[in-house]
Amino acid sequence: MLQHRGRLVVTCPDQPGIVAAISQFLFAEGANIVQSDQYSTDPWGGQFFMRVEFDLPGLAARHDALKRAFTGVAARFDMRWELKRAEPRPRMAILVSREEHCLLDLLWRWQAGELPVDIPMVISNHPHLADRVKPFGVPYYHLPIEPGGKQRQEQQMLALLRGRVDFVVLARYMQILSSEFLEEFPYRVINIHHSFLPAFAGARPYHRAYERGVKLIGATAHYATEELDEGPIIEQDVIRVDHRDDPESLRRKGRDIERLVLAQAVKLHAEDRVIVFGNKTIVFS
Amino acid sequence: MLQHRGRLVVTCPDQPGIVAAISQFLFAEGANIVQSDQYSTDPWGGQFFMRVEFDLPGLAARHDALKRAFTGVAARFDMRWELKRAEPRPRMAILVSREEHCLLDLLWRWQAGELPVDIPMVISNHPHLADRVKPFGVPYYHLPIEPGGKQRQEQQMLALLRGRVDFVVLARYMQILSSEFLEEFPYRVINIHHSFLPAFAGARPYHRAYERGVKLIGATAHYATEELDEGPIIEQDVIRVDHRDDPESLRRKGRDIERLVLAQAVKLHAEDRVIVFGNKTIVFS
Amino acid sequence: MLQHRGRLVVTCPDQPGIVAAISQFLFAEGANIVQSDQYSTDPWGGQFFMRVEFDLPGLAARHDALKRAFTGVAARFDMRWELKRAEPRPRMAILVSREEHCLLDLLWRWQAGELPVDIPMVISNHPHLADRVKPFGVPYYHLPIEPGGKQRQEQQMLALLRGRVDFVVLARYMQILSSEFLEEFPYRVINIHHSFLPAFAGARPYHRAYERGVKLIGATAHYATEELDEGPIIEQDVIRVDHRDDPESLRRKGRDIERLVLAQAVKLHAEDRVIVFGNKTIVFS
Amino acid sequence: MLQHRGRLVVTCPDQPGIVAAISQFLFAEGANIVQSDQYSTDPWGGQFFMRVEFDLPGLAARHDALKRAFTGVAARFDMRWELKRAEPRPRMAILVSREEHCLLDLLWRWQAGELPVDIPMVISNHPHLADRVKPFGVPYYHLPIEPGGKQRQEQQMLALLRGRVDFVVLARYMQILSSEFLEEFPYRVINIHHSFLPAFAGARPYHRAYERGVKLIGATAHYATEELDEGPIIEQDVIRVDHRDDPESLRRKGRDIERLVLAQAVKLHAEDRVIVFGNKTIVFS
Repeated sequence: MLQHRGRLVVTCPDQPGIVAAISQFLFAEGANIVQSDQYSTDPWGGQFFMRVEFDLPGLAARHDALKRAFTGVAARFDMRWELKRAEPRPRMAILVSREEHCLLDLLWRWQAGELPVDIPMVISNHPHLADRVKPFGVPYYHLPIEPGGKQRQEQQMLALLRGRVDFVVLARYMQILSSEFLEEFPYRVINIHHSFLPAFAGARPYHRAYERGVKLIGATAHYATEELDEGPIIEQDVIRVDHRDDPESLRRKGRDIERLVLAQAVKLHAEDRVIVFGNKTIVFS
Repeated sequence: MLQHRGRLVVTCPDQPGIVAAISQFLFAEGANIVQSDQYSTDPWGGQFFMRVEFDLPGLAARHDALKRAFTGVAARFDMRWELKRAEPRPRMAILVSREEHCLLDLLWRWQAGELPVDIPMVISNHPHLADRVKPFGVPYYHLPIEPGGKQRQEQQMLALLRGRVDFVVLARYMQILSSEFLEEFPYRVINIHHSFLPAFAGARPYHRAYERGVKLIGATAHYATEELDEGPIIEQDVIRVDHRDDPESLRRKGRDIERLVLAQAVKLHAEDRVIVFGNKTIVFS
Repeated sequence: MLQHRGRLVVTCPDQPGIVAAISQFLFAEGANIVQSDQYSTDPWGGQFFMRVEFDLPGLAARHDALKRAFTGVAARFDMRWELKRAEPRPRMAILVSREEHCLLDLLWRWQAGELPVDIPMVISNHPHLADRVKPFGVPYYHLPIEPGGKQRQEQQMLALLRGRVDFVVLARYMQILSSEFLEEFPYRVINIHHSFLPAFAGARPYHRAYERGVKLIGATAHYATEELDEGPIIEQDVIRVDHRDDPESLRRKGRDIERLVLAQAVKLHAEDRVIVFGNKTIVFS
Repeated sequence: MLQHRGRLVVTCPDQPGIVAAISQFLFAEGANIVQSDQYSTDPWGGQFFMRVEFDLPGLAARHDALKRAFTGVAARFDMRWELKRAEPRPRMAILVSREEHCLLDLLWRWQAGELPVDIPMVISNHPHLADRVKPFGVPYYHLPIEPGGKQRQEQQMLALLRGRVDFVVLARYMQILSSEFLEEFPYRVINIHHSFLPAFAGARPYHRAYERGVKLIGATAHYATEELDEGPIIEQDVIRVDHRDDPESLRRKGRDIERLVLAQAVKLHAEDRVIVFGNKTIVFS
């Protein structure tokens, strides 16, 4: 089914006629629109965003020609755009440190067919989770960080990742990635932070939530950028806690919301439903 | 601002080219699309639904001509459609019995500019709430139901409503309306039921929720149809309760969720965001 | 019914025997416990908290004697404690500036019997809401702030409040109160802040939530302290938003959650269910 | 730590003095109360419920003597009661058919230390999930149901379960258990039903939710009783869906809420926090 499915994601200055031009183009090419979403920051002179999902028999063979044909429309409206096929599915690497819950949840959902991705590798700076990953048949690379060897380890990771993955998920990977690393995957590295950002950015959010006495804790999936925990937010959610919760029970309760939020963000990203604009996201869910 | 705002709501059998035709039509007429949503039950042969919100300078004067011009597009795709202006705002009557919370919440939101409606009248089968309505400057009609006089009271209501309102909200109106009444406002009578339908349809839902020992209670806004509490659902929500809640505290907690759900449903309906299909709704929120 | 209802709220260093001593005392006095909650930060050497609600026929006449009798128990365990009657109900002043939604929601709930308080006065630094308050029969005092006259206006407020109210609610009162003012009502001034604290403390939280691109917005009820938006949190909640929301629609959606959170916090406080410990609250809901 | 932890769970007709007697008893025995919850359906003549968690050094050795000593208190107030140790942990069997999500979630949480239970066995009427269970080191028994052999298979299950488990979890076990089976585990069989009961009791709830057009779907954990889906509810929750969801996506979204609700119910039950009264539960969470 999905072999004929394509997605056109577009952004450009808003003006009349964009939707007409895009839908006319797709119709003329024989495509059938199955979902379409659009948004404008301001219909009179703002920025326009659109995601169209369509079926087009023989898309695989016609993909390149279709892209060439669209350049005319794109030029007319000064568009940034991508025209992608739903298959092959995007390739996602998972980076993890010691905590397993996000990693296992992603692997389980992937195995259950919930996540439209391939997972060519899991990379960790620790060896602990290799046995957990083995039953899923995904290669596990242990790349430890020697004292003073952080840059070297990043290079080892990049050597593994380059050309083999489309995006990277930090499933509780507790190392800060350099801007050199992030530049290789612009808005293609998804982090799960265990707080309701911008509250408790940085280290030990559950401890600080405990200290502050909040009545809800949360989790935030966002694109990692050079500034820690400041990147565009993809998805957030919270759960209720009370005075009886200590940092340990916050951590335990938080795991559930971390798993749900990260899985949802990965699914949205993998289906090309997230568009970054400035430091914010448009999410066509 | 809203004087130039129009909404085109369409449903037809799905086939390629619909979006292209509609967007081309609007572009040619000089309209700028500000929001557009669509849905198909099946892109290959299902039913297609679309709601387009657009700005078109001079819409008030051009409304009739625009409708005539669209009939060609509509005929080509066998559409059921409406082309409406955002202003004047739809006229909403509120029917109420003794409980005031939904009524007052709607009036307060209307006064605060949250609900894009006019409210030409409140009708009640009881006199009690007249004083509450007075500060809002909305006429309050007390139409009591004499023994055996239910049909007559409905006729009195219809005499007040006909030609003066576009839709009717049952804000805890505790009388069952006849099918004759409902036929005058097809899918234009919104009821708030104080349970999470289809659970606890019918009488005394909070008592029955208490008896069953549920851990959440809810409220449901739906279009009233001949079959009680069986009409298309517009909006629902729930709140958490526990073993300490008795029917009285369920009722008190439920009021909050009734108010929110009804207000949301009224807003969605007034903005032409709800399309009925079979016994379900498509909601372009 | 409530005339015989009493509440004993206790905190002391934890040690074995506290519950036995308190329950034995109440039993010996002829009281029937109707609700009891307790919490200890650490059962072996932490701080212990307890709230007992009980019925004791003739409580009004016996209240002082009961308090004297309890001093023995209290001394034995080094307790801080209060023994209060449910009636007369605590007296609550509402301070408000220009935005009416929290004020009106509190007044409406009070009138509907949802809030166990008396409301002897509403005070505002603006005249605008006087007409809104009038139907509720609550005196409205307009105390404007002249240039350089902030201290004077606080003195005027204190003159009105002293001896006449038990606690104060800032229902979107947009002035920062001095520490002199707050010291007269220690942990007896409840503020509603229109963000999920500690995110967006300070001014213009909805604008900043919009700028940051969060996917949820929230509201926080807390005790006002000298440090702005840093006081002990009583209650919080959030609602979902998306990229289409601008600051104005965030404000509109936020009003619903502000109303619910503030009303819940007021109810908890009025029923002596909130105990402050350090900068956090124990809430026996 | 938990080796000294005990729990006393009591219900009896309400009357003054119960809390005093229980807390005095525990204090005299040298126990330190770490948590205590109580509830009365009516403080004047209703039913009283209490759960006390306490630490008592040497509890393992003194458990029987403590129970004997408590019989006097219990007789005085006509109590039904249990005095249990937190360790050894209760033994939980999991019954499952073909769907793995609830099973794996329970196993994962158990392995992560979130669920205070031992899991001596998984039983299935299908062979499919044996490989999934193997990494967890829990025996998997495949007991197929031959045509006409349902009673026989139940006998085989009982032969495995008797004396080896304290309670049974139906983790999407799609067979209806006979009343003979259930009688061996009164209020000790927890089922997860994939709807918000009482809505959509019985077969194919997601399909029926789809047909009805609800805007939220839910899951309910309850004790299995002779009447299908009518037993006392332990926990429920819901998630939002919309018109775009078909039965398949409802099933996928529902899995998340099923997992959370079942895990929460198992935890509550394993910690003796659930008391059945009539067809309802008191949950001291």
